[in-house]
Amino acid sequence: MTEVVAPDRLIADLPEGAVVTDADILAAYRQDRAQDPDAGTPLALVRPTSTAEVQTVVRWCNEHRVPLTTRGAGTSLSGGSTAVDGAIMLSTEKMRSIDIDTATRTAVVQPGLLNAEVKAAAAEKGLWYPPDPSSFEICSIGGNVATNAGGLCCVKYGMTADYVLGLEAVLADGRVVRLGGKQIKDSAGLSLTKLFVGSEGLLGVITEVTLRLLPPQASASTVVGSFASVHQASEAVLAVTARIRPAMLEFMDRASINAVEDMLKMGLDRDAGALLVAQSDAPGPAGAAEVEIIQRAFEENGATEVFATDDPQEGEAFTAARRAAIPAVERKGSLLLEDVGVPLPQLPPLIDGVAAISERRDVTIAVIAHAGDGNTHPLIVFDPADADEHDRAQLAFGEIMDLAISLGGTITGEHGVGRLKKAWLPDQVGPDVMDLTATIKNALDPHGLLNPGVLL
Amino acid sequence: MTEVVAPDRLIADLPEGAVVTDADILAAYRQDRAQDPDAGTPLALVRPTSTAEVQTVVRWCNEHRVPLTTRGAGTSLSGGSTAVDGAIMLSTEKMRSIDIDTATRTAVVQPGLLNAEVKAAAAEKGLWYPPDPSSFEICSIGGNVATNAGGLCCVKYGMTADYVLGLEAVLADGRVVRLGGKQIKDSAGLSLTKLFVGSEGLLGVITEVTLRLLPPQASASTVVGSFASVHQASEAVLAVTARIRPAMLEFMDRASINAVEDMLKMGLDRDAGALLVAQSDAPGPAGAAEVEIIQRAFEENGATEVFATDDPQEGEAFTAARRAAIPAVERKGSLLLEDVGVPLPQLPPLIDGVAAISERRDVTIAVIAHAGDGNTHPLIVFDPADADEHDRAQLAFGEIMDLAISLGGTITGEHGVGRLKKAWLPDQVGPDVMDLTATIKNALDPHGLLNPGVLL
Ligand SMILES: Cc1cc2nc3c(=O)[nH]c(=O)nc-3n(C[C@H](O)[C@H](O)[C@H](O)COP(=O)(O)OP(=O)(O)OC[C@H]3O[C@@H](n4cnc5c(N)ncnc54)[C@H](O)[C@@H]3O)c2cc1C
Ligand SMILES: Cc1cc2nc3c(=O)[nH]c(=O)nc-3n(C[C@H](O)[C@H](O)[C@H](O)COP(=O)(O)OP(=O)(O)OC[C@H]3O[C@@H](n4cnc5c(N)ncnc54)[C@H](O)[C@@H]3O)c2cc1C
Repeated sequence: MTEVVAPDRLIADLPEGAVVTDADILAAYRQDRAQDPDAGTPLALVRPTSTAEVQTVVRWCNEHRVPLTTRGAGTSLSGGSTAVDGAIMLSTEKMRSIDIDTATRTAVVQPGLLNAEVKAAAAEKGLWYPPDPSSFEICSIGGNVATNAGGLCCVKYGMTADYVLGLEAVLADGRVVRLGGKQIKDSAGLSLTKLFVGSEGLLGVITEVTLRLLPPQASASTVVGSFASVHQASEAVLAVTARIRPAMLEFMDRASINAVEDMLKMGLDRDAGALLVAQSDAPGPAGAAEVEIIQRAFEENGATEVFATDDPQEGEAFTAARRAAIPAVERKGSLLLEDVGVPLPQLPPLIDGVAAISERRDVTIAVIAHAGDGNTHPLIVFDPADADEHDRAQLAFGEIMDLAISLGGTITGEHGVGRLKKAWLPDQVGPDVMDLTATIKNALDPHGLLNPGVLL
Repeated sequence: MTEVVAPDRLIADLPEGAVVTDADILAAYRQDRAQDPDAGTPLALVRPTSTAEVQTVVRWCNEHRVPLTTRGAGTSLSGGSTAVDGAIMLSTEKMRSIDIDTATRTAVVQPGLLNAEVKAAAAEKGLWYPPDPSSFEICSIGGNVATNAGGLCCVKYGMTADYVLGLEAVLADGRVVRLGGKQIKDSAGLSLTKLFVGSEGLLGVITEVTLRLLPPQASASTVVGSFASVHQASEAVLAVTARIRPAMLEFMDRASINAVEDMLKMGLDRDAGALLVAQSDAPGPAGAAEVEIIQRAFEENGATEVFATDDPQEGEAFTAARRAAIPAVERKGSLLLEDVGVPLPQLPPLIDGVAAISERRDVTIAVIAHAGDGNTHPLIVFDPADADEHDRAQLAFGEIMDLAISLGGTITGEHGVGRLKKAWLPDQVGPDVMDLTATIKNALDPHGLLNPGVLL
């Protein structure tokens, strides 16, 4: 892609140890969690600690036309932080400061802090940072902002974008911009803060974010329902969301239930066709009323067993089971991870359609979903040593995205397009939106240095 | 600005009556509600009814390099829809269709429909469109999206941006893009939907929006507090927001109370230094608890009178009084309208500072505020015939924005920059953000045809 440039000047301009060229260490930064076999090998790994050091890196890249991949914690499921041959891999892992302002209920955070660490720091001051991707203990806040991460509570509390009041980014030419701030409402100029949220490292390196915090969440009650079929469970989801806005509404099919049970041995019903885990955090009698509505919606849609608890620990066990689904299914083989979303009424046809694809292509597809907002994760399992199964898995991967698009949905609800889904993006958004996207990318990064290979 | 081009071809290509060149009619479209005395006279007024007709207009403008101003209902308080000499004035007033989908809880709306009409159509289907600018009965939904309008309930329910799931826009070269859709979560590509929200007509003509609707709001209780001083009232605001998230928290100072009382004669306390109007829509006992918290917060901060009611009509009378403040103060003279916002703890210094500026510049400044989110509207009243007072008002106008910036705030919380505030935008955001803004504008509208004179 580019001629090899020695990073001598970069090494000289940064503190000792910030630039790493050791091949063994570089190898650990080639792939992200999507395990792209085509990952490249970076020229060097750089671990800056400050915005100024990030500027030094980006300026050097700009001067020498060396591409740059920004990496948070590398938990991307779409190949977004995969290395590029000859590029700089900029890891934010050493940018870990946080400053919580209780008066404005905001946190000013460097990007490398983990989501769980942001939550913990907020909790220490009696506040709550809601967004909770299942990976919250292992993903960075910068990665969350760059992908507009969702999670379990976003059915009621929204996505990462809803909590980003401001941010600082280093642009492709090395300039720093500060966008937004601590004020809740700000209409001064174009919505640039929002443009950088979800930009997958294409428009700049995010070096600081200002997050909105909430008062602590009220204690939640949990309702778990077992269903004979995925279809019934998806109908039950609609019955719940038509009546209330639950604080969580998660879905697991039989394959994922069994994978989790294999790993956690917690006594889940291996014969259930699907499991729903819902929560209400409405206070007092309102919460009790919501729990009743959820129970009734489950029962009316054929739940074989419904279990409710207001014990937070018991509830957390089921939430943890749901969160463990991806690692649990990963033990069964290599994965192609989907993130398709549809307008809610299309959830049953999506779930049914995925089952049909699984049968037609003869591959195991374990389905988990943030069902309350129509966002599903069909996990296609294949044996990498079986070339034919690998091909069938690849076909299923594309067919599921085609299905979501045909249902008026999206190829990615929260993980981002990355490398793995970019071939399908034009089918979803059309040539004019692709062109508009490229226009903005080119205007901000004319030499195409930031995260090449992702999205476009 | 441009050579005069006769719009003959445009007239021929559009349905009869769509293009208006009658001088009397054009005169009515020169100014918006900000009443900019420097408003121009458009070449022609065009009132398309469809996206295809908007394309015809924009293509014609692009071909002949004629600038174009998009106008919704013309209630802009920042001069955003003011006419430009020799430009096309595109009014969306005839684009009025709406389609409500109860299954996905969304509305697909053409831009010319009024906010109140969207609310009413949603209510007819048992749904609720929350955003409620005080101007909701006279402003268009397209204008709301183009300015990311706020309102009274946005302290709890967010801005217009939070309800825009998708939109269609005609770009400067006449191409149509469709962004987002009915799905709640969508991470496919850059956040272009959000970029168009709040773009003040600079990036394209918004021809359709897909709005998220909510289940109906629960009946709200209202608490009204009178205070001797604006300072006490602003401290009471902080005391409320530190404890709960009210559904409304509005502020009026003595000047605005008296202006409203002059107009409505509803028995407001003319001697009060300030009035707060708060609402809780939490259900049942939770609502009662919130009402008590609000009452206590008012009392602890020196309220001279506190009145609570759960009668919606009684509550609406006070809300209507607050909404009437701008028209009421407009009767007192010409206005310069501020929209400054600050991080909440800076609200008392902002309110105190505005009082000091009023005294120093010897001009009446009536202050109303969406206080719960730190967004205030100091209304500077002046006699246009009094040149000296006009100059003093202009000085105060700038000083209030300088003050907000110095408190870490914004020159506009919800009305947009338009023409009237653009001189202060660089002070708030700095040269690099201005440059980034111009880069995006130039990339999307290289000939600078869309809403010239606004923002940049
Ligand atoms: C078990 C498991 C469960 C998961 N569950 C969820 C879930 O529920 N919801 C969800 O949304 N995601 C989920 N994910 C996906 C992943 O955790 C998220 O996408 C997360 O936001 C990525 O964060 P990261 O720090 O690992 O980013 P990385 O993987 O390092 O990077 C992700 C993308 O962001 C860019 N990026 C990272 N940091 C910056 C920065 N500072 N500036 C600019 N660009 C940057 C990268 O270039 C890349 O394009 C899950 C992943 C796993 C492994
Ligand atoms: C009494 C009064 C009270 C008000 N209270 C509030 C309040 O509480 N909160 C608040 O936010 N605002 C308030 N406003 C300001 C105003 O009503 C809002 O800014 C509103 O969103 C403007 O809508 P409009 O249809 O009148 O737009 P216009 O004034 O016609 O246009 C406003 C801007 O949007 C652009 N625009 C309009 N339609 C389109 C489109 N289809 N495509 C692209 N660009 C477009 C215009 O070019 C212009 O830049 C108030 C105004 C008045 C007069």
